[in-house]
Amino acid sequence: MNFTIAKDVILNHLLISQKALSTKTPAPYLQGIKLEVYPHELVLITSNSDISIKISIKDESLKVENVGQILVPGKYFVEIMRKMNGTEVAFSVVDNNTLRIQAGNSDVTLNMINVEDYPDIQFITNDNPIKIDAKVMKSVIRQTTFAASAIENRPILTGVNIRVDGGKLTAIATDSFRLSQKHIDLPANFEKMNVVIPARSLDELSKVLELNLDEILIHLDHKSILFEYGNVLFQSRLLDGNFPETSRLIPVEFPIVIKFNKNDLFVAIDRASLLSAREGSASIVKLNLRADNVVEITSNSPEIGKVNEEVFPLDKVLGSSIKIAFSAKFFMEALKTFNSEQVYVKFTGEIRPFVIEGELDPGLVQLILPVRTE
Amino acid sequence: MNFTIAKDVILNHLLISQKALSTKTPAPYLQGIKLEVYPHELVLITSNSDISIKISIKDESLKVENVGQILVPGKYFVEIMRKMNGTEVAFSVVDNNTLRIQAGNSDVTLNMINVEDYPDIQFITNDNPIKIDAKVMKSVIRQTTFAASAIENRPILTGVNIRVDGGKLTAIATDSFRLSQKHIDLPANFEKMNVVIPARSLDELSKVLELNLDEILIHLDHKSILFEYGNVLFQSRLLDGNFPETSRLIPVEFPIVIKFNKNDLFVAIDRASLLSAREGSASIVKLNLRADNVVEITSNSPEIGKVNEEVFPLDKVLGSSIKIAFSAKFFMEALKTFNSEQVYVKFTGEIRPFVIEGELDPGLVQLILPVRTE
Repeated sequence: MNFTIAKDVILNHLLISQKALSTKTPAPYLQGIKLEVYPHELVLITSNSDISIKISIKDESLKVENVGQILVPGKYFVEIMRKMNGTEVAFSVVDNNTLRIQAGNSDVTLNMINVEDYPDIQFITNDNPIKIDAKVMKSVIRQTTFAASAIENRPILTGVNIRVDGGKLTAIATDSFRLSQKHIDLPANFEKMNVVIPARSLDELSKVLELNLDEILIHLDHKSILFEYGNVLFQSRLLDGNFPETSRLIPVEFPIVIKFNKNDLFVAIDRASLLSAREGSASIVKLNLRADNVVEITSNSPEIGKVNEEVFPLDKVLGSSIKIAFSAKFFMEALKTFNSEQVYVKFTGEIRPFVIEGELDPGLVQLILPVRTE
Repeated sequence: MNFTIAKDVILNHLLISQKALSTKTPAPYLQGIKLEVYPHELVLITSNSDISIKISIKDESLKVENVGQILVPGKYFVEIMRKMNGTEVAFSVVDNNTLRIQAGNSDVTLNMINVEDYPDIQFITNDNPIKIDAKVMKSVIRQTTFAASAIENRPILTGVNIRVDGGKLTAIATDSFRLSQKHIDLPANFEKMNVVIPARSLDELSKVLELNLDEILIHLDHKSILFEYGNVLFQSRLLDGNFPETSRLIPVEFPIVIKFNKNDLFVAIDRASLLSAREGSASIVKLNLRADNVVEITSNSPEIGKVNEEVFPLDKVLGSSIKIAFSAKFFMEALKTFNSEQVYVKFTGEIRPFVIEGELDPGLVQLILPVRTE
């Protein structure tokens, strides 16, 4: 095997590939990057227990003298390419078990892993993928994955439920203390789909969606889902099990609705969270709609001190008064998902979940369960 | 106690003060910031086991209604001030044991620590301080502290030896595997001085030297040293014991001298360090001056692979050939201290310490002990 390629071309693709590298694995081959060299194509394959990435590079700088397949230690290979000088890199296999890498005044020899050990990873596409605007997909991920559970005691909640029904896609994540839901309209009607994708896989996918491409194609299979983004195939396993039915959790009638400037509300909660009572690691903050229609955000830590913030609603408030306590972190994370400068916080009652919506964020609902305090 | 002040003024000074806050201490008062309020002056005092900082603020925005002295929990106080809105902050003591802080729409009450518990810290100045250009002091610190020992088995080596003799100041740090030495000329003759200052104290001082002031004054006492920088007094303890006599360690005759482009040499060593044999946590890299006057930088890790770099000396090399092995980290850290783009690496022999000097860095010597390899 023997080829040359522009350094930046292979490096930029390796930086995507490495997102599927295993760092801790008993199987050394999963710490490897597989290079498949064809006459006019270089393919990079990486895989860990959650995701697999396959990248096809057909760059004009690629000059192949001898085809072949090799497996190189991923971390070292990426580090070397990152630090190489020179615009062009030459790769050649020496003695069957080492890869020689030459660029500028550098001559590097890297021991390879036996490519025969590498599993045959199927990247499963179909003829009728769902098409989504890549920027929309990226924002769906940003608006939902943070609400998935970080702990594994109910594995299904570590995923994001994605449903397609006709021309509509819905993404839902919940850790059972809060819930994020985003509806988007698809450009056409597609086949029904109802899957749960590990939130971590989607976070990695989101980092891949930074090339400037318009569209992402979603190919669904029984056990896996494949995102096709230009020359990158990004495949994730799916989570087994039924995602909880969440539609009834979201209240439909809100006797109390307050419109806020998002940033004013955020900084008030942020300051209050500095000196707040804690439930485990969560900072508990209280919101109080006073009779004079001013909202107080307060916190109190007997050992350290207390904070009292006044926030002024933007419009006339619907409803008279409410006192409610919640996790400052959950509220701030939810607020961050909105593009709108103005948000509505909608309450049903003091011990009922409340909802945040944005003026310019159609289809996005953030729901938070209050905390009971005495 | 009762005063108001511009928020940015107190915040910017708190960010300096907090460098002397103890984070881990059995004495809660050392986690505090002492505020002394006088009719036209606010004084901030912080102290930990190594350093003490006293800042005098005489800003026109300061309006004092009642004088007094209080002790507030440092971390919380700084965090609150960092997150406060508004241009002006009002402070008032309530019930003798809490501090009320009001700014914008925020009203914060912070429990105080008993100010009677705070030790009486003496900041000792004298009438004949040494005067140094603050930028020069900052660069002396940057060029030496990194070479001090990070481990405590010989405490004296965790410090930087600073000597003043007549119109000359010398700073030396060594962890016994490498040594940094910097001479500077002082603007006048000062009293003799020979002290060892904890390297960590100097690193903190360096962060303080970012206000745009020309001059720093050094006041020496028996047990401590005080740096006066505008309205900031920065005092450090001194290390007890004798700093080793290092002058004989630096060779004076160098049969082999090679002039390099600093950056070319740096990146070659950096790449070689990727795949290198290790001594403990150190990456060992070899330098070989070939008969054709090209320098090879090589490394070899039997399990991973090897690197061979060619670096071309800038001028005719003095001397014929040398092979020497060293810690890549030590060499790279030493190179970073030079402002010069061109550096001289000077060798005495293959198992003798070698020296790096910079074309435009008078008075700066970096010495490194080679590593023996077979």
